[in-house]
Amino acid sequence: MNKIEHIGIAVKNIESANLVYEKILGTPSYKQELVQSEQVNTSFFKVGENKIELLEATGPDSPIAKFLAKKGEGIHHIAFDVDDIVSEMARLKAEGFVLLNEAPKKGADQKLVCFVHPKDTNGVLIELCQQI
Amino acid sequence: MNKIEHIGIAVKNIESANLVYEKILGTPSYKQELVQSEQVNTSFFKVGENKIELLEATGPDSPIAKFLAKKGEGIHHIAFDVDDIVSEMARLKAEGFVLLNEAPKKGADQKLVCFVHPKDTNGVLIELCQQI
Repeated sequence: MNKIEHIGIAVKNIESANLVYEKILGTPSYKQELVQSEQVNTSFFKVGENKIELLEATGPDSPIAKFLAKKGEGIHHIAFDVDDIVSEMARLKAEGFVLLNEAPKKGADQKLVCFVHPKDTNGVLIELCQQI
Repeated sequence: MNKIEHIGIAVKNIESANLVYEKILGTPSYKQELVQSEQVNTSFFKVGENKIELLEATGPDSPIAKFLAKKGEGIHHIAFDVDDIVSEMARLKAEGFVLLNEAPKKGADQKLVCFVHPKDTNGVLIELCQQI
């Protein structure tokens, strides 16, 4: 793991959450991106070498809609930047972690991503991401 | 906010969680510290310019014991590094955020800390921290 790439926060309404995080961080969202395959609308803020990613569901089958229904708004995942996602996936799998996708998939922000099941990570949903 | 200082993760058992995060991050915990005033045992890992802080309750009145009872293991808070915690607290209060402590208090890792109520931050418990 090179560094924390971003922290994902599930929100009900991305426009109002943008205003909240602009106030907290003292900087506006610099990018919004719709990820249709995941039914997620995203908004990114820079803070130091990391990003904050707000996540809004765009449909009822979105993983964010399911998270909000179960847990409400809050931190959804931590994403770690990796150089080679395939080898990092293989390393974690060999260590006994369960991956939620067997092959890297395209995520927001020009990344290949893979999620690790939170049952093995003390309840934390971890994302691996590699810049495309 | 200068940067994300650390991400706090509430765990039931810090010894077993240390082994999990050593595997994930590829680096061992570099410091453990008991914060008696908060009834919390902590363990720190470095990743890039950030830290991961594991948090274990040491008594039933610990905020971590209450969090675990309500939500189970998982991400507990995001901490942002600030140069002047008093002025940052005043700024956020003026913006309408509710602070959980009116004066900075001593936290782990040689920091003055203040928490912001998650009701105004889309469910995210935010910590401000200033190096002492």
